[in-house]
Amino acid sequence: MAADNAEQRLALIKENLAEFLNEEIVTKILDEGGHPKIYWGTATTGRPHCGYLVPAIKMAQFLAAGCELTVLLADIHGFLDNLKAPLELVMHRADFYRHIISTLLGAVGVSTEKLKIVLGSSFQKSPDYVMDVYKMASIISEHDAKKAGAEIVKQTDNAPLSGLLYPILQVLDEQYLDADAQFGGVDQRKLFIAAKEWLPKLGYKERAHLMNPMVPGLHGGKMSSSDPDSKIDLLDSPETVAKKIKKAHAAPQVTEENGLLAFIEYVLLPAAALRGKKEFKVERERDGLETLVYEDIEKVREDYKNDILTPQLIKPAITRDLNALLAPIQEAFKNDKEWQEIAEKAYPPPPKKEKKVKNKGTRYPGGGKPEEKALPVRANGDGPVEATEAAPSAQ
Amino acid sequence: MAADNAEQRLALIKENLAEFLNEEIVTKILDEGGHPKIYWGTATTGRPHCGYLVPAIKMAQFLAAGCELTVLLADIHGFLDNLKAPLELVMHRADFYRHIISTLLGAVGVSTEKLKIVLGSSFQKSPDYVMDVYKMASIISEHDAKKAGAEIVKQTDNAPLSGLLYPILQVLDEQYLDADAQFGGVDQRKLFIAAKEWLPKLGYKERAHLMNPMVPGLHGGKMSSSDPDSKIDLLDSPETVAKKIKKAHAAPQVTEENGLLAFIEYVLLPAAALRGKKEFKVERERDGLETLVYEDIEKVREDYKNDILTPQLIKPAITRDLNALLAPIQEAFKNDKEWQEIAEKAYPPPPKKEKKVKNKGTRYPGGGKPEEKALPVRANGDGPVEATEAAPSAQ
Repeated sequence: MAADNAEQRLALIKENLAEFLNEEIVTKILDEGGHPKIYWGTATTGRPHCGYLVPAIKMAQFLAAGCELTVLLADIHGFLDNLKAPLELVMHRADFYRHIISTLLGAVGVSTEKLKIVLGSSFQKSPDYVMDVYKMASIISEHDAKKAGAEIVKQTDNAPLSGLLYPILQVLDEQYLDADAQFGGVDQRKLFIAAKEWLPKLGYKERAHLMNPMVPGLHGGKMSSSDPDSKIDLLDSPETVAKKIKKAHAAPQVTEENGLLAFIEYVLLPAAALRGKKEFKVERERDGLETLVYEDIEKVREDYKNDILTPQLIKPAITRDLNALLAPIQEAFKNDKEWQEIAEKAYPPPPKKEKKVKNKGTRYPGGGKPEEKALPVRANGDGPVEATEAAPSAQ
Repeated sequence: MAADNAEQRLALIKENLAEFLNEEIVTKILDEGGHPKIYWGTATTGRPHCGYLVPAIKMAQFLAAGCELTVLLADIHGFLDNLKAPLELVMHRADFYRHIISTLLGAVGVSTEKLKIVLGSSFQKSPDYVMDVYKMASIISEHDAKKAGAEIVKQTDNAPLSGLLYPILQVLDEQYLDADAQFGGVDQRKLFIAAKEWLPKLGYKERAHLMNPMVPGLHGGKMSSSDPDSKIDLLDSPETVAKKIKKAHAAPQVTEENGLLAFIEYVLLPAAALRGKKEFKVERERDGLETLVYEDIEKVREDYKNDILTPQLIKPAITRDLNALLAPIQEAFKNDKEWQEIAEKAYPPPPKKEKKVKNKGTRYPGGGKPEEKALPVRANGDGPVEATEAAPSAQ
């Protein structure tokens, strides 16, 4: 997809967004032919699954639109999320994330020249940063911190103090990552509003905020996250992907909260567009009918409503496109001995007992592996849609 | 006062304390002939006044008992307390505090060889410390943090988040200052209990806690802190001291909450003991009567109750002893050009408008100068006794 002039670039940046605050900050840079710096953060806790594709496609669009993209690997949060895990494990996971995110973005066919992956620990322990944390804590009220985290931090009296502290970190990250804008799910809205208000109090400039809508997971959020079948790992084999999608819940003719349609809208169609042609094909050979070719989601929805597109028809099509999307990732993994070793160290065999995982927001959609969830930290919590499955949707 | 064996040393350490938690930690060290490391913290905000003499005498006793004493100058807190003040001002104040505290302790005649004065900023921004702040915040609940600060941090919804964050810092300071015990006012009790509980959660050892009782101020806490006459500065001239003490409120025969008697008990008698002879003399020449010599506070109280000791008799005696105590400090100041310059930079002429200062706890009794009070930080708040006057009592 060509995005050469300011309007085209802006259109690509805005595609599928639910909301865009202080758009003028970005348009000004685009008008001057510059490269808006956008940042997205993720805690390096769970193992990245297919839910990552939703924000990843959006980030690929940012790159295609000539933005500079910074991915923050919030390793400190990952570590704090599970104090029992040795620091080494968290470092291996950050390493694993680094590999998978850059490969993922490359797999969509965009240049990752303007992609920067930054470890939280590389600056969140620096004296200047820490002074700003102390400063912010002394001018922000408990009430404000609570409000900022209302949708993403568990709001109980027993919640750890970090739930109030991490909004401050997330806001300061905008400054310390030198971002023009932060990207996240719409469940981050209150925090983004806080960022707009808080940064100027320390004399820092206000940033723009881009928000993805909340998108239902591939399984419609109906399956438990502790069910291994409910998550599609980014390194799952084509057969496993097929099996998991086959089991996905999807009522015929119901387009609302439909994870399959959402996946087409937020992942497959934009990914196809990035690769050159925005289309989604559904083969009907078995029924002796011609292949359906969709160029926009509206027509997909219409046909689904009218039962022209059934779950049985759509699932193999999604499986085919998802596997095509994952193929270069798996290929890269297969050819990268170092990455394989990292994977083994980062995700050793799970312990016997599994605990149910909750309170994972969209900012850090990686969570969910039972063994690494001890305490809720930073921007996690139940989003409006409990995205237990592949798509933590919003991002 | 000789304190050569373990029992004598312990008795001196315990004198006048309201409470002593985990005493066994200190006695064990004394039994082995060692030097218990005790720490006391103060925010470098207001100008140190006579209220400092209460904790200072206790600290002089610690030194006399062969303890290692660390005074933490919480400059970061001082800075955060007043974000509008330039960092330079706070550094000058910390410098001023450093001079006055070491001179003050020396003035009582104890060796300051085992005295260490440490700036908070020298370690509270270090990566290890910061990681521990993050860690602690992720295992301590909001509720626990609030409870820990209940008596020393303003408890409103609008209170800054720092009120919940600083208890964590104060607890970690015990570890990072390598203390065996922390000393403070009894209004710090909840925080000290929290320290006992929290440090082991990070694998650190539990410390002992020594608490001074809450002592009424010289003016019985009846005068406003914005009244310049209500505070006796440690550098006030003998005439000014006399004038201020003359104005002190003290009802005849009432010994409860009597700031004058408290000053004799917690400052003058122990200071005399440290200098070699525990006594308090009241001259009655004017009435043609012999001088009264007291060796303990009980007899002072008894005579006061019976109106043998009147406020009119006791005030000149206190003035005489206080001025004797302050004389070496003023002498040192007069002979130290550098210190004089620091004083000028640290306390430039106050602005016209004065605001009432509240929420100053005993941990950091320096507060009160209107110009440097912007937001409550760390362990401040109203103590059980609102020590607006000279003695923030507890320490």
